Parts: sequence; structure tokens; C-alpha cells
Amino acid sequence: MAAKVGRRRTVPAGDGQGGAHATGRRVRRPDPVEAAGTGGERAPERRRALVVTVSDGVAAGVRQDVSGDDLARRLDELGFGVDRAVVPDERARIEQLLVAAADGHAMILTAGGTGLTPRDVTPQATQAVIEYEVPGLPELMRAEGGRSTPYAYLSRAVAGVRQRCLIVNLPGSPRGALESLAALEPILDHALVTLAGPFDHDLAPDGDRTPAKASRTRAPHHQSS
Amino acid sequence: MAAKVGRRRTVPAGDGQGGAHATGRRVRRPDPVEAAGTGGERAPERRRALVVTVSDGVAAGVRQDVSGDDLARRLDELGFGVDRAVVPDERARIEQLLVAAADGHAMILTAGGTGLTPRDVTPQATQAVIEYEVPGLPELMRAEGGRSTPYAYLSRAVAGVRQRCLIVNLPGSPRGALESLAALEPILDHALVTLAGPFDHDLAPDGDRTPAKASRTRAPHHQSS
Amino acid sequence: MAAKVGRRRTVPAGDGQGGAHATGRRVRRPDPVEAAGTGGERAPERRRALVVTVSDGVAAGVRQDVSGDDLARRLDELGFGVDRAVVPDERARIEQLLVAAADGHAMILTAGGTGLTPRDVTPQATQAVIEYEVPGLPELMRAEGGRSTPYAYLSRAVAGVRQRCLIVNLPGSPRGALESLAALEPILDHALVTLAGPFDHDLAPDGDRTPAKASRTRAPHHQSS
Repeated sequence: MAAKVGRRRTVPAGDGQGGAHATGRRVRRPDPVEAAGTGGERAPERRRALVVTVSDGVAAGVRQDVSGDDLARRLDELGFGVDRAVVPDERARIEQLLVAAADGHAMILTAGGTGLTPRDVTPQATQAVIEYEVPGLPELMRAEGGRSTPYAYLSRAVAGVRQRCLIVNLPGSPRGALESLAALEPILDHALVTLAGPFDHDLAPDGDRTPAKASRTRAPHHQSS
Repeated sequence: MAAKVGRRRTVPAGDGQGGAHATGRRVRRPDPVEAAGTGGERAPERRRALVVTVSDGVAAGVRQDVSGDDLARRLDELGFGVDRAVVPDERARIEQLLVAAADGHAMILTAGGTGLTPRDVTPQATQAVIEYEVPGLPELMRAEGGRSTPYAYLSRAVAGVRQRCLIVNLPGSPRGALESLAALEPILDHALVTLAGPFDHDLAPDGDRTPAKASRTRAPHHQSS
Repeated sequence: MAAKVGRRRTVPAGDGQGGAHATGRRVRRPDPVEAAGTGGERAPERRRALVVTVSDGVAAGVRQDVSGDDLARRLDELGFGVDRAVVPDERARIEQLLVAAADGHAMILTAGGTGLTPRDVTPQATQAVIEYEVPGLPELMRAEGGRSTPYAYLSRAVAGVRQRCLIVNLPGSPRGALESLAALEPILDHALVTLAGPFDHDLAPDGDRTPAKASRTRAPHHQSS
């Protein structure tokens, strides 16, 4: 019933080893983060993210999954282990996939189905399965996207948390998807570290706005990607 | 029970034929859009919009409907066929009107009832009848309005879709109503074209941010009105 | 069962009488506002605000309530009579407190419990007890906070109205709490005057954006605090 979640790793960014430098793009490659609960002896695991392409056309095999490929490549650059999935624009299918995948991933990014039409149901599916919303993330994506095009404000994207997994809707267009992810990048690490716990507010107070990593995350909103 | 929806056309903008030029205002008069389903032989129909003034005072005849008049005039300039309605600040009445009118209009703009008091119920009525929200539109209206006055952030305006009709709450003050509409203008055409369908995501992908009309809609957010 | 609401007045701001000037900080001290229903003969009462610190650590007595102290001091400067309360991060306890306190206060500010973790439940508790949301206030706090740090967008703060009492969630960090309050200050007076009524839209139209006090409230968003 539910869509398959592939655990295939995505190809590295650029055109290979030196590609990033050769093309003038600077790839931020942060230290891998240990998965919660793993012992110190094993090599540290990369956080796992799932990219879900929501598209009738891609699901039917009549359309290339450019947005999904781009997002997976960028997440790989950011140090995530990336899984992929594709579902048609059907609410029940999307919900099933999110429910099944939340437990095994630190983050799920969906691409597509956030537009104005009745066929766009990704936000409704997301709202149905999250435990609570994180409204600032869509606000940030729309405000940042609005600097490129006012159409960014038509995205009905939702973000929220289910089982400590951060679920974020991105637009379906390649440019919109990557720009939205770029808007989140300055706060993504902090968000996922917070969600990984522990939840002792006295050690790591909620809403703490001066973490040790502040200098890095205070980079300008628009990072070259 | 439900308020009457008048199908009277509004007067043209400015002081007549040459008024727009005479006063130095540039009136954007886009090509009329064919209503969905009409044949190619008939003269193209203008998209129909409904302006709903929500006001106890206007409904009781003791207050002039300045905001409604201004909105109707501006929509006429933008190429819409405009209907008008007036309801008091009563939630059931507003809901009935929206439900009755959604089918026959591409867009419904309400003016009034978005403030902080218990008597302001337009957002609640709107939320009760829409199929899904379009949260970026109120965000955009508040952010743009906030450039003129921070009070713009007190508007509880909601936007959403019912039966492919885009319903947007605007503030009740003439200035707030017109400024909010101005904030939406760069994306209104694209939103209504998208809602009119068809919903084939492969031909017209959701969230597509580079439509053919991009050059026109990329105009600065604040258009002279 | 419910947390106690202390009616102790907070200490004045600064280091005493001349402290504000001595330190170069300009303290806005607006005229006190008469409480609704009091006669003209009595000295005008200050509007009452409640500061609720939501924190397991503060409630257990193992952590200092810096945010609560800072917020109370600032509200005193702004002319409010300030009450204080502390609750742990438990949804039922927060809801009980908000319900009990809404009737006696013009405004309740919570501090804490707005982060990403499952232990952060202040927004959910707030949503459960308000009659309607005022979404622009969190939008404004996140957008203004985002000028200092992108982490401001991780706040899940909610604002709304219950029994004419404006309830606003602020982040738990001292800096985040004070900056969020500062973002609201330009519109706070207008919001509370509106909520105090009367609700005659024809005398005081909802959404009126040109009130008599406009010149003062049009001050820049970021006020020195």
C-alpha cells in the first residue's frame, strides 16, 4: 500500500572529487553527527533524511524527478544520509508514507503538492500526521522565497514534528525546492540537535538563542548552494 | 436569510474616460480572461469577483461603504467583473454568503471584521467554509502593510479556497483594504489562472515559479494604484 | 491544582529613580490607562498584565527566572501593573493557569515552552484555551527576531484572545523574550485599547489604521529597551 522508501544513497554533488571547487561552488560539509543511541566506538553515523517527491507525473514514470534529485544532492552535501521516495498526489498515500518513515529519519522533506489547486494535498496530509506545527519554517521559506519571486507566497507549505522527526513541505519546482531548503539551512542543524534531545530544559533551554554554534549559523540567510 | 449579492457593475475608475491619465495614475488593464468552459466564439468574459463588506454600520445604512467602493473600483481596473454584498458582523450570515457565492466567483474579497474584538468574526467564518487555507497571502498582506504601519500585524485576516474560489479577508479601513489588495496584485493573476485549472501537474506543475507571465508579475510589490 | 498567581508588584526598572537616564536608556512611560468600569474620581488604575514563566527548572526552584524578571521589569516600565506566575512544562497546568487568569488581566505573556521538543507545550496549551488566534503577532515576533538570529523562526509561539485578554507566547531565553516583547510594543497599546472596547465598529472601526495615537505608535519597530 504505502510507497516504497528506497535506502539508496544519492550521488555526491558536483562532477566528482574536485567538482565543487572546479565549478566555483563552495560545499559546506559539516562533521557527521552521531545518531542518537549509538555507542562511541562505532564510526559516527550520518543523520538520515528522506526526500519525498509528491508528483503524479514522477510516480507514473512520465516525468523526471529533478527536484528530488537536487534536494538529495544538497542534503548529501550537508552531511545527511539520504533516502528517497515517490508518491502520487494522493493524500492517503502521502500520510502513510510520512507515518511509516518518521520513526527512522531525523528529517523528511517533501517536494510538490503545495500549490493552490484541489489536487495539491501535501499540506493537508502533513497536518494530519504531525504532532505539532512549526509555523516559522514556512514563514521563513515564503519570506525568503519572496525576495526572488512573489509567487513564493502561494506555497501552502507546512512544517511540523512527528516522533521527533522534522517534516517540512517544499514547493515542487526545482528552483523553489532548493531555495526553500537554502532558507532553512542556517537553522537546520540547531533544529535537529534540539529534536534529538535530551529535553532537559535546564541544560539546553528551549528557545535558547545563543548556542555555541551561533557564529556559524549567523551566516547570511542566502547561502550559495 | 443570506445577504443579497448584487450583480450591478461598478463605475469605472478615475473621473471617466481619460481620468486615469489626467490624474497621472497608470491603470493596468490586462486582457480579459476567458471564463472556464465558455466557447471561443463568444466575446471573452471577465473574471467575476465579489466584494463583501462586513460591517454592522454599513448593513444598517448608517455608514458609508468606502472600503467596498474602493475595492470594487480597483478590481474593475484590474479587469474583473465585480459584484457587491453587505453583511453585518455576524458569523452565520457571513458563512452563508460565502457558501452561496463561492460557486459563481473566481474570487471573493471581504472587507472588515478582521480586528481583535469578539465582534470581529470574519476570519472564523472564512475558516469554517474554506476547504484549505493559503497562509502566505495573509502573511504577505501583513508584512507589506507593516511597512506603512505596524498595526497591519493586528489583522487576523485569513485566505483560502472553496470550490476553486479564492477567498481573502481584507481589513475594514479603506487604506488597509486597498493596501492589502495591492500587496496581492503581483500574484493574483497567477493564483486565479492556477485555480481555474486544468490541474494536470505535468503540464502546469504546482509551485511552478517561472511561468510565461513572469516578467509582468515580477513587478515591484508595491504597485501604484 | 492551578499554579498560584502572585499579585506582588515588580521592582522598578533601572537602578532607581534616575537609573534610566543615567544609563542612557530612554524609558517610555505612557499615561496610565483607566481600567474599564472604574469611576472618574478614583486615581486611574494601571492595566494589569500577568507574566507566566513556563519552566520545569524554575518551577522546581533549581533555576533562576531571569526571563520572567526581565519581562516584568519591562512591563512595569510600560505602565502595567504586573503579576507573576510559574508553572512547569505541563500542558494541563498551563491551560488551568491561563483560564483562571484571563478574566483578571488585560494581557498574559508566557515565557518558555515554545521550542521544538515534545516537552515544549505552551503553544498547544494556549491554542486550547483561546477563543481566536491573532497570527500576526507571532509572525511579527519571528520576523523581527530573525533580524538578530535566524533561530527566532524556530519559536512556535502563538497569540490569541480569551475573554478580551490578549495571550502571547514568548520564547524562554531572556534575550528572545525581551526582543519579542520589543517587537510588539509599537502595537500593544492599540491592541489593548481595542480589546477593552466598546466594540461599536462605527465609532471605533475594526482594522482602523489611523488612530489618534498614530504619531506615537509609528515609531520604528525596534525600540531601545
